[in-house]
Amino acid sequence: MRKINLQEIDYIAMGSTVLGTGGGGDPYIGKLLVKEAIKKYGEVSLISASELDDDALVVPIAAFGAPMILVEKLFSGDEFMKAFEMMESYLGRKIDAVMPAEAGGLNGVIPFSIAAQKQLPIVDADGMGRAFPRLEMTTFTLHDIPASPITQADEKGNKNVYHTINNTWGEVLVGATAIQMGGSCAIGCYPMSGAQVKKAAVQGIISYAQTLGEAILKAKEQNINPLDSLMDKAAAIKLFTGKISNVSMKTEGRWNKGVCEIIGLDENQGSTMEINFQNEFLMAKKDGMAVAITPDLIVLLDAENAQPITAETIQYGTRVVVIGMKADKQWRTPKGIELGGPKKFGYIEKYIPIEELNKKK
Amino acid sequence: MRKINLQEIDYIAMGSTVLGTGGGGDPYIGKLLVKEAIKKYGEVSLISASELDDDALVVPIAAFGAPMILVEKLFSGDEFMKAFEMMESYLGRKIDAVMPAEAGGLNGVIPFSIAAQKQLPIVDADGMGRAFPRLEMTTFTLHDIPASPITQADEKGNKNVYHTINNTWGEVLVGATAIQMGGSCAIGCYPMSGAQVKKAAVQGIISYAQTLGEAILKAKEQNINPLDSLMDKAAAIKLFTGKISNVSMKTEGRWNKGVCEIIGLDENQGSTMEINFQNEFLMAKKDGMAVAITPDLIVLLDAENAQPITAETIQYGTRVVVIGMKADKQWRTPKGIELGGPKKFGYIEKYIPIEELNKKK
Repeated sequence: MRKINLQEIDYIAMGSTVLGTGGGGDPYIGKLLVKEAIKKYGEVSLISASELDDDALVVPIAAFGAPMILVEKLFSGDEFMKAFEMMESYLGRKIDAVMPAEAGGLNGVIPFSIAAQKQLPIVDADGMGRAFPRLEMTTFTLHDIPASPITQADEKGNKNVYHTINNTWGEVLVGATAIQMGGSCAIGCYPMSGAQVKKAAVQGIISYAQTLGEAILKAKEQNINPLDSLMDKAAAIKLFTGKISNVSMKTEGRWNKGVCEIIGLDENQGSTMEINFQNEFLMAKKDGMAVAITPDLIVLLDAENAQPITAETIQYGTRVVVIGMKADKQWRTPKGIELGGPKKFGYIEKYIPIEELNKKK
Repeated sequence: MRKINLQEIDYIAMGSTVLGTGGGGDPYIGKLLVKEAIKKYGEVSLISASELDDDALVVPIAAFGAPMILVEKLFSGDEFMKAFEMMESYLGRKIDAVMPAEAGGLNGVIPFSIAAQKQLPIVDADGMGRAFPRLEMTTFTLHDIPASPITQADEKGNKNVYHTINNTWGEVLVGATAIQMGGSCAIGCYPMSGAQVKKAAVQGIISYAQTLGEAILKAKEQNINPLDSLMDKAAAIKLFTGKISNVSMKTEGRWNKGVCEIIGLDENQGSTMEINFQNEFLMAKKDGMAVAITPDLIVLLDAENAQPITAETIQYGTRVVVIGMKADKQWRTPKGIELGGPKKFGYIEKYIPIEELNKKK
């Protein structure tokens, strides 16, 4: 157990954007909500799953919607508490700890706001180890943990509870109403026991996000290169250096789908990279050949300061570095590849681990 | 209180199709479910609202979706019971009686199936006195009775509870998930007290549907003209006689929107009628002039046997008679016209009562 201070929230938010792999929503507004809550209610305790009682009730709280809208539409803040309280009232018992459903993007920090207000610990774990665009794409699903009951609240005051036959139906139904609600809402989902968190979650992911964020933000004062610092901590593979030459994007339901094209510079002069995204960056191809494939992480960084760029904020002409990171080992099993791999997103390429794709370089 | 036998179910189903004014879904499949339930569990008691205790809990149970899909997609039957039981469990008390939300179309008979299985009475009342295409378009809304909590179940096993800030949001959110569920689902809605039913519902509507159905179906054996018989019982105004010359229809969300054109025959030789529909027939114009406007009822009948024709089954070349009926007095108030009148559906015409529109004939 350790207390998280305001400075550390900055690191965690920055690291969550890295783990967001282009999606998950920019955590900027979430960070403001969290800091406000911490100033008002005090610091939050981060605990490891091993500190949980096996029968503790742990509930992930998340923002749910399209990344572009999550950034543009203001949250009242209140809807997360409503989703939390509906879960307690529906289950008829107190929640003992909260956690992120995904540690990537906005959702890496949102649970801190509830944890502060309720003076509950936040578990250093999540269900993705990154961001993914669908509710059912979690390591919890890999362990057959139901997403239901799912509680849903919007800033207007609508409050619903879903009991779906499987986690994919949770995505479909909550997604349909989220669009009607203006594109975003707050949810409570995957209520689970401490024992389940220990077994099914990606462990230590908030601390990991903090480490990545620190690597970027502290590099300047330490007089080191932030990119080198981040790549070292992330055990990342450098995939490409270049300049954004084109972005095409369309919104389908709650997904921003598109392609980002990069023209090579420096060591990649003469080459091009194409990154496909569906909220998150899912497939990176260099000169037509895949060099990183979901569930491995593809991260687009500003070449100036190594800060991650989300898909909806990509701008023509920006100098970028693309890095790749290994997905959590749970995603690299046959079941994990089926749930979060390229076929699930309609790509014909087979999943090959990033370190194998880039072996001969 | 009186028991409803299988023969009377036939009459009620036929009368409900009249009150469906082209929408509400054909009650044929619903009728089969109901008859099966009655054969298995016994006849259902129809009670008037005045027989209810003021603090009785009454819940309308309904099929919710697009009429075309309600006809084509088979119900398991089970989803209505699930919607009923979720309501009991969510409210934490037993339901004392069921009723239709709308007595038009499929929903005029569906509650009989639950009433039979649960051996509960069905109240001779509804919230529309006809069919309407949106959940919030009820006399209950006119009395500020919330549609929430709304319970929702589909044939796959998904079960949700909605608590919306107003009844329009109920339509929007339940509508969004109903589409994902394949276009239809079962709902429990507007849980209310006996006192509220007495005040807010359209009274005697099931008996009225039975009267209308009997008028059509018994005419033959009584050697009278079924059209005359129906028009007499419905105090209807004959609007047009002709032949279907064109139908255009498109599905938008859970609505079948379109226009039906009729070329005049007999006394209407040389004239044309155009009927606009959004699930239900909402506006009838003769030679370009409105002769019946929602919330008044527009009913399309087969000229051969006076049986009502639903919008999704209109066929080119059919000889038809169009009749109009007065809406319940609750719909003819300023508040009723605002909720169920032409402006709500995007028509520029102002509501004028059908008897005034057709005075000079």
